[in-house]
Amino acid sequence: MSTQTLQLDAQGRLRHFLTIEGLKPALLTEILDTAESFTSVGEQTVKKVPLLRGKTIVNLFFEPSTRTRTTFELAAKRLSADVLNIAVSTSSASKGESLLDTLHNLQAMQCDMFVVRHGASGAAHFIAGHVAPHVSVINAGDGCHAHPTQAMLDLFTLRRHKPDFGALSVAIVGDILHSRVARSQIHALTTLGVPDVRVIAPRTLIPKDIETLGVHVYHDLRAGLCDVDVVMMLRLQRERMQGAFLPSEREYFYLYGLTEEKLAVAKPDAIVMHPGPINRGVEIASGVADGARSVILQQVTHGAAVRMAIMALVLRPGVERE
Amino acid sequence: MSTQTLQLDAQGRLRHFLTIEGLKPALLTEILDTAESFTSVGEQTVKKVPLLRGKTIVNLFFEPSTRTRTTFELAAKRLSADVLNIAVSTSSASKGESLLDTLHNLQAMQCDMFVVRHGASGAAHFIAGHVAPHVSVINAGDGCHAHPTQAMLDLFTLRRHKPDFGALSVAIVGDILHSRVARSQIHALTTLGVPDVRVIAPRTLIPKDIETLGVHVYHDLRAGLCDVDVVMMLRLQRERMQGAFLPSEREYFYLYGLTEEKLAVAKPDAIVMHPGPINRGVEIASGVADGARSVILQQVTHGAAVRMAIMALVLRPGVERE
Amino acid sequence: MSTQTLQLDAQGRLRHFLTIEGLKPALLTEILDTAESFTSVGEQTVKKVPLLRGKTIVNLFFEPSTRTRTTFELAAKRLSADVLNIAVSTSSASKGESLLDTLHNLQAMQCDMFVVRHGASGAAHFIAGHVAPHVSVINAGDGCHAHPTQAMLDLFTLRRHKPDFGALSVAIVGDILHSRVARSQIHALTTLGVPDVRVIAPRTLIPKDIETLGVHVYHDLRAGLCDVDVVMMLRLQRERMQGAFLPSEREYFYLYGLTEEKLAVAKPDAIVMHPGPINRGVEIASGVADGARSVILQQVTHGAAVRMAIMALVLRPGVERE
Repeated sequence: MSTQTLQLDAQGRLRHFLTIEGLKPALLTEILDTAESFTSVGEQTVKKVPLLRGKTIVNLFFEPSTRTRTTFELAAKRLSADVLNIAVSTSSASKGESLLDTLHNLQAMQCDMFVVRHGASGAAHFIAGHVAPHVSVINAGDGCHAHPTQAMLDLFTLRRHKPDFGALSVAIVGDILHSRVARSQIHALTTLGVPDVRVIAPRTLIPKDIETLGVHVYHDLRAGLCDVDVVMMLRLQRERMQGAFLPSEREYFYLYGLTEEKLAVAKPDAIVMHPGPINRGVEIASGVADGARSVILQQVTHGAAVRMAIMALVLRPGVERE
Repeated sequence: MSTQTLQLDAQGRLRHFLTIEGLKPALLTEILDTAESFTSVGEQTVKKVPLLRGKTIVNLFFEPSTRTRTTFELAAKRLSADVLNIAVSTSSASKGESLLDTLHNLQAMQCDMFVVRHGASGAAHFIAGHVAPHVSVINAGDGCHAHPTQAMLDLFTLRRHKPDFGALSVAIVGDILHSRVARSQIHALTTLGVPDVRVIAPRTLIPKDIETLGVHVYHDLRAGLCDVDVVMMLRLQRERMQGAFLPSEREYFYLYGLTEEKLAVAKPDAIVMHPGPINRGVEIASGVADGARSVILQQVTHGAAVRMAIMALVLRPGVERE
Repeated sequence: MSTQTLQLDAQGRLRHFLTIEGLKPALLTEILDTAESFTSVGEQTVKKVPLLRGKTIVNLFFEPSTRTRTTFELAAKRLSADVLNIAVSTSSASKGESLLDTLHNLQAMQCDMFVVRHGASGAAHFIAGHVAPHVSVINAGDGCHAHPTQAMLDLFTLRRHKPDFGALSVAIVGDILHSRVARSQIHALTTLGVPDVRVIAPRTLIPKDIETLGVHVYHDLRAGLCDVDVVMMLRLQRERMQGAFLPSEREYFYLYGLTEEKLAVAKPDAIVMHPGPINRGVEIASGVADGARSVILQQVTHGAAVRMAIMALVLRPGVERE
């Protein structure tokens, strides 16, 4: 089944949230607008709304990630849902149970949502294709494929600073080849009408035919950053250094690390983003990460609101499932 | 102290839930009837009742088990209790604290219930014998001894399909020798008046004198399954393969694995159960596990309701402890 | 910044809780009095008050400790807060993220409180010096420096038995050199006016210049226990045995282990305390730990109330942060 058929219901509303690829601009905008209404929850004395009270949300993590798991747990609790954290590497999987049996068991317990992180591209799609009608799946990162909630919180943060998407130049810098974040960002940016999306990386870290996604490829950081409004840095997975992809951290920083000096070629009001966790001195200089143009911590704050919005839209409390 | 003196109060009501052996039929029926009233909770939009609000329930797991821990956590949260998960292998036990000191500390924190899983037979009984009057203990599996909540959810599922226990033939198939599930199932079935309970296993996996529990022993699967109404498969612990108990997984499946063809000798409307997690192709063929006669996932669904019922009966909210 | 400037606000009220050193007697008394009002919560049928509903409290543990983590989790849940447990050794720290980046991320998620345990002395102070105005830090033990909530629950238990602090002799026995508990106890006892505070330990386990804290040093257990009202035993970290600090567990017990016979030289109504977990037969005989003078399990019970009090005072629900 195509991902769109899978993640949308007959009325075109979100039923799962697996990928941004193929979603209509209006739907992305609905997510951003809904997230706006949730930003105030985190600022209230009582940071809770009863929207998903009595729902059971399972954080099903096949890859360890404290940060992402924590954000989803926080978002679910602020929506008053009950949360179960399951790290599958330490669970029945080690007893030889298949992925599908684990899933079928959890949905038999009448859980309402699986937030899934998995090392294999396509895992969230696969899972969504096998759950019962009462269960929704949110992709919290699958292999090198997609990390759509991260891209939506990036876009949310971007919109707060640069609301006129139709006039923007955005550069995504780093290991495009292995980055699920970059793929989701590209789809979100192009879908919402950003006319100039650039990817900047060494030749070894650019996927073949990436231009077909509507982006411009740069191998030189200064050339690529010239006059951009937004710089989206990617985290460098240090394990890539082991292989033939990269020479050394020092050389990478020299060529592709974001410094104040390199950032000077961007627009004067350009902002800097990063999905975290940051490798200071590898892909970004500390001064830039902590500097006036950095909106990195705003991204984290918006992450809770955006994930609350997506959870609420997908479960649509009060609306009966067909 | 005898287990019955321990798990029942002066009025004969459940105070702990340690084993099915020795419980009266009326009490088992009360558990099943109470669980019926909780099945609707999992189907509501708000899957929560305020019955145990403000109670503190501790999942005290000396053996890892994501599945069982998750079911109890879910049941407790649907009853609105607060849940603490404690995996003892990674806790103070490693600092040399004794089991009793760990327990006494937790009950000094005014916890109301310990859900205990332990690798040693008798551990739950031992713990129940040492807790304060305000604390209840539920046995979530102790060594090869008992797994009474599993047996109750099996019986609950069975009753939904075959309510006339007085006319049933039930076969339990697999490693009877090491199975805490089988022991609890046998006690539950015979207590509730099932006249024909059979155990089917190779000679090496049948405990001596099992007939004294009121069951019939078969070593041939086809002979044992003949005309039964219910097949309760057991999980094969693969580590048993290491020892002298079993020749090989392939040979085990050939002799004792449940296939459609072997199942054909059972009654036409026979149902198939399994406590999970399933070893497909070892003790059960995939086609049977997923087939029309399988009620395996219904067992999981009922597991939440049955555990809610047992928790509620044991804590008896609103009734003062003597 | 000095710790007092850090942990108190302009009105002299608690903003963090890092150390007892330097706090005024009135403030310690306020904590004890507030804890009194919370003791009833643990005895109610519904062990919950809505005081911190909608607050997000993060247990940020850089050192594993099931017991301390559990007590704080319990206290937070009884105040109706949402709790996130983060064990940092298994989190982003392993991805090379700095401590400050981890902190900044968590506070960007609009968490209200970090309960911090860390192996390095000064860690809680460091963290409190870097959090945003909306975040409070509670020190749950930092290296050999301080464990102030433990000392407050000790004082709370002490006051229940011996309310006239001005007339007391208190002996602290064990590894004073490495004990964060002992340091906090000494500050609490002297601040609240206990005139005779003694520390008893072998020469290798007494810090230089400890007398400047206002205590009397004893190397002989019987001499030190003579006529005391209270004996506060410390846990012996067994790893100390590896080094040159101590000869053997057996010899330690012979010289410094608390037995009924040695306790006989204390006042007839002397009480015995221990922060747990106990090493039976190493620093304390089982008969003493479980005996009539032991208030060890009362300490655990009071731990929940005292931690609730400190959390509530630090967050001051209803009072706007400047």
